[in-house]
Amino acid sequence: MSIRPQPPSHPLHQLQTTPSFPGAKKIYVQGSRTDIQVPMREITLTPTRLDDSVEINPPFTIYDTSGPYSDPQFNAEYAQGLPSIRDTWISERQDTELFNHSDSLYSQQRLADPELTQLRFPRSRQIRRALAGRTVTQMHYARQGIITPEMEYVAIRENQRLETMASLSPRIHPGHTWGAQIPNLITPEFVRAELAAGRAIIPANINHPELEPMIIGRNFLVKINANIGNSATTSSIDEEIEKMIWSIWWGGDTVMDLSTGKHIHETREWIIRNSPVPIGTVPIYQALEKVAGQPEALTWEIFRDTLIEQAEQGVDYFTIHAGVRLAYIPLTSNRLTGIVSRGGAIMAKWCLAHHQENFLYTHFAEICDIMKQYDIAFSLGDGLRPGSIADANDPAQFAELETLGELTKIAWAQDVQVMIEGPGHVPMHLIQENMTKQLETCQEAPFYTLGPLITDISPGYDHISSSIGAAMIGWYGCAMLCYVTPKEHLGLPDKHDVREGIIAYKIAAHAADLAKGHPTAQLRDNALSKARFEFRWEDQFNLALDPFRALDYHDATLPKESAKKAHFCSMCGPQFCAMKITQDVRDYAQQKGIDDLEQAVEIGLQEKANEFKRQGQQLYPS
Amino acid sequence: MSIRPQPPSHPLHQLQTTPSFPGAKKIYVQGSRTDIQVPMREITLTPTRLDDSVEINPPFTIYDTSGPYSDPQFNAEYAQGLPSIRDTWISERQDTELFNHSDSLYSQQRLADPELTQLRFPRSRQIRRALAGRTVTQMHYARQGIITPEMEYVAIRENQRLETMASLSPRIHPGHTWGAQIPNLITPEFVRAELAAGRAIIPANINHPELEPMIIGRNFLVKINANIGNSATTSSIDEEIEKMIWSIWWGGDTVMDLSTGKHIHETREWIIRNSPVPIGTVPIYQALEKVAGQPEALTWEIFRDTLIEQAEQGVDYFTIHAGVRLAYIPLTSNRLTGIVSRGGAIMAKWCLAHHQENFLYTHFAEICDIMKQYDIAFSLGDGLRPGSIADANDPAQFAELETLGELTKIAWAQDVQVMIEGPGHVPMHLIQENMTKQLETCQEAPFYTLGPLITDISPGYDHISSSIGAAMIGWYGCAMLCYVTPKEHLGLPDKHDVREGIIAYKIAAHAADLAKGHPTAQLRDNALSKARFEFRWEDQFNLALDPFRALDYHDATLPKESAKKAHFCSMCGPQFCAMKITQDVRDYAQQKGIDDLEQAVEIGLQEKANEFKRQGQQLYPS
Repeated sequence: MSIRPQPPSHPLHQLQTTPSFPGAKKIYVQGSRTDIQVPMREITLTPTRLDDSVEINPPFTIYDTSGPYSDPQFNAEYAQGLPSIRDTWISERQDTELFNHSDSLYSQQRLADPELTQLRFPRSRQIRRALAGRTVTQMHYARQGIITPEMEYVAIRENQRLETMASLSPRIHPGHTWGAQIPNLITPEFVRAELAAGRAIIPANINHPELEPMIIGRNFLVKINANIGNSATTSSIDEEIEKMIWSIWWGGDTVMDLSTGKHIHETREWIIRNSPVPIGTVPIYQALEKVAGQPEALTWEIFRDTLIEQAEQGVDYFTIHAGVRLAYIPLTSNRLTGIVSRGGAIMAKWCLAHHQENFLYTHFAEICDIMKQYDIAFSLGDGLRPGSIADANDPAQFAELETLGELTKIAWAQDVQVMIEGPGHVPMHLIQENMTKQLETCQEAPFYTLGPLITDISPGYDHISSSIGAAMIGWYGCAMLCYVTPKEHLGLPDKHDVREGIIAYKIAAHAADLAKGHPTAQLRDNALSKARFEFRWEDQFNLALDPFRALDYHDATLPKESAKKAHFCSMCGPQFCAMKITQDVRDYAQQKGIDDLEQAVEIGLQEKANEFKRQGQQLYPS
Repeated sequence: MSIRPQPPSHPLHQLQTTPSFPGAKKIYVQGSRTDIQVPMREITLTPTRLDDSVEINPPFTIYDTSGPYSDPQFNAEYAQGLPSIRDTWISERQDTELFNHSDSLYSQQRLADPELTQLRFPRSRQIRRALAGRTVTQMHYARQGIITPEMEYVAIRENQRLETMASLSPRIHPGHTWGAQIPNLITPEFVRAELAAGRAIIPANINHPELEPMIIGRNFLVKINANIGNSATTSSIDEEIEKMIWSIWWGGDTVMDLSTGKHIHETREWIIRNSPVPIGTVPIYQALEKVAGQPEALTWEIFRDTLIEQAEQGVDYFTIHAGVRLAYIPLTSNRLTGIVSRGGAIMAKWCLAHHQENFLYTHFAEICDIMKQYDIAFSLGDGLRPGSIADANDPAQFAELETLGELTKIAWAQDVQVMIEGPGHVPMHLIQENMTKQLETCQEAPFYTLGPLITDISPGYDHISSSIGAAMIGWYGCAMLCYVTPKEHLGLPDKHDVREGIIAYKIAAHAADLAKGHPTAQLRDNALSKARFEFRWEDQFNLALDPFRALDYHDATLPKESAKKAHFCSMCGPQFCAMKITQDVRDYAQQKGIDDLEQAVEIGLQEKANEFKRQGQQLYPS
């Protein structure tokens, strides 16, 4: 390989060729109809060279979040947007209609403003809405027994062509699933049943036909979210799109756009039109911008208009802080770190200023009514999440969780999809209580947590301390993990930070899949470890979560191409190698007959255990 | 602050002034006698500025592993070595004598070689040895009811001046201790009792009087180890000393010298003379060098001479792979990744070549006899640890563990201190079994694990995947965590990697302390979170595990000095701040009377729960 692979440089759309993962190619697995084409990354593996023969290692397929951007056939033009792969699926259902005008006053204003012409996404697009009285959510279809193309798509996607990797499966540990029930093969019917039960969601706004559907639920692969967003001072639109692409390139399953700066309406349109993953937002952030940053000036009408504005653009899930009830707010007053959620603080301030119940709570049924017309999923915000170890699992946090459970029922009664946001800062021994309470209180709606960080003392390394909590809660049953970057608590993340944060969270999510015994998870560990053991260096790199980093680090010590073919590594040097010795062991074991030996050792151990017991009483001074 | 604090640059001994942690000073807490001076880092905190008053925040004291190097009074001269703070304690016991000649043939040869004069540590030093028939281990004294100065020292050290931090204690979560029994205040008598029971060790060779004693056991703070070591091609002696200092600067509690290159005898002497932390080694590595890297050429005599050589230099603990028994070796033949421990592979190769039982096993009593004359602790090596998720918790691993339990009894019968090494690569759901089995099999001897890594697919980020496993096993009861750097599996770590690895492991160790409910642990989280909430930026940085990184990252977005005094941060901007709103909440709660409210909410929730149950049956389609 003469050209050294590199992650995509910035900006992507100016590159002459599409970058790709080393040793990998983009493939599509076709479903029951030709327009179901599920993308995956297929990693070509080199053969194992034995003394007198060669063993072929079949290509290894992994889940791919990077969208068309990693497809060499695809030519990214942001002004064009991505192909609308779901258009037919949606229109076929005949429960929606297309409009040329927006129902949002704000959107109308923005469209009428000639100064925004240059900023606006150029391709014209009709707005899709449910027919009067119709519900167009995946939950609704699921409950009616309908398997949509979206459901089939995610079933294929979750399986990652498991059947092609049988050679790696004999060594799989059964997982410990804490009540999850993951089948050996995900079927479209299983997806449907999980959606119907509310145990999983497919965030997929009908105005986001470019979306490659994915599923969030604890009986599926654990997902991760990455946050992007401009602020008052920075970021062009191109930069925001690049951030989104950078996030999904490294493995982000969804992206939240947390912009608070100028032109967020226009920026969001560009992002959604170019995003193959679900986009989530916190609409109260934009609503606050519309009232010049004064929480007390917020009204239901402004908020409602913002929901419709974003619904029409294609946002796939909304964080709504409807659980921050007036009565709970004083519960935070004795906290060490009060209210640290921005949305929570906004609503708390509004409630206190008006001495009224949170308008998101009082208008919740109306919000559901909007969500179900576009199929936007709720991400019910945890506005009272703990901001420190001291405040973990306190009455304020759990009071809000109770309300989120109540709201879940209301949303489900309207067939609106729901996930629940969770903390935050929690010491390890209090994490499982969060998961258990959430499942109980919210009737198994998917949990979506920020970390949690398992200590407060690691600013600069909070991606690590939070990935520890994330791995654990993922194992206990959390369905999606919101990433944390090294800049958490300190500043705004740059590209380096996003990459670090995403990989830390891919580790956490994968570790959770392994521990739960997700049938495809350990295959990748086995494939990589086999490559490592057999000194197939390139294969080891290419199977890694970040092949570029693995290659860089290896080359920092042994840059020569020949070293990547050598049967040793820099740790022990050419003279001696632990792995090499194992071959001698195998030869020896073959002579002896391994089955006899295993048995002999077990009997021996048992004898010895008894012997030690007797001896121990003499040897050990009591 | 006009001069920006920086971590020590390389090489330290050429600096004009000793670097120090920002906002911190080195203090010494005196014990029952004037020569017990326990070092700590005292962090000065700024006052909290309230509307109409100022609240003083007392200085915060933390455990300090950095030795005299962070003491501005100390002038590091490597050729001089550190002061021998334990000399009097050791000689007072009157159970040792001093010699001018070595008992090791190899040491005698090295000393006689004129070509090594330039390399040799210049200060002459007598070798200390137990009087004939005497045992000089801390375990021995403990079992005789003697509280040594070392025991008192570690008791003071563990407490970290807890009593000065009472203002932060009301919010402490009780831990979940998995059978550990951590007292509120560590007393010298508690230390003695734990040592006597074998539940803890103080690695402290009588030939390492420069050592600042520390304790390893699950009823104490979780410790971390950092590895250093030269290889065939690299590293001057100065560089190796710098690596050791760099490791303890960031928080390494012990350092293992895994050198395999030239002049390791001389290099080790320099390292020990300049090390305030226990130094561990794997003597089989050096023994292998002496037989030109041919495992089959190893003999008990060469190994024994190596033990004495290193014992006389002052190595504090030895990794001994005595559990790799001949009968267990074939158990690894069906593994995905065979034997990955270097020491394990060496012994396996020896056993197979000779068709004989491991000589470390057959000579174990003789090894104990050497250890007890110098007070070297065993770190019983896990030569058959799994090198991949697939091989975790397999018969080979657990067969060896059984043997380590047997050997522990033999060592304890001679009052030799013991800890047990553990894996490796283990998925999350199999970690606790490792800890439970280890406690059971090895009669609660301290466990010392490498990670474990909870997935194999993260080369380049294995410090993260292993810190997840490390945090969990630390919580379950592991006493010391051997760090892993980002270069694991790929190459040799540089200074950046060492820093990353150590901080990742400080996070894991601290998280474990928190979850176990170690009485001092959460105080630091509380102090940092209070500073964070009150916008005392400098205090937040200075209380962090890596103050330099925290400051750098903050300044990357908001470099101005004034920003560090501002009541906002770059995440939300000056216009809006979540934490600021909390003050309004507090004012509101004060009006309402918080106690009444807490009660009201609880009653309210209970009522609502019943109400929801009724409602739910109507709302939710069955």
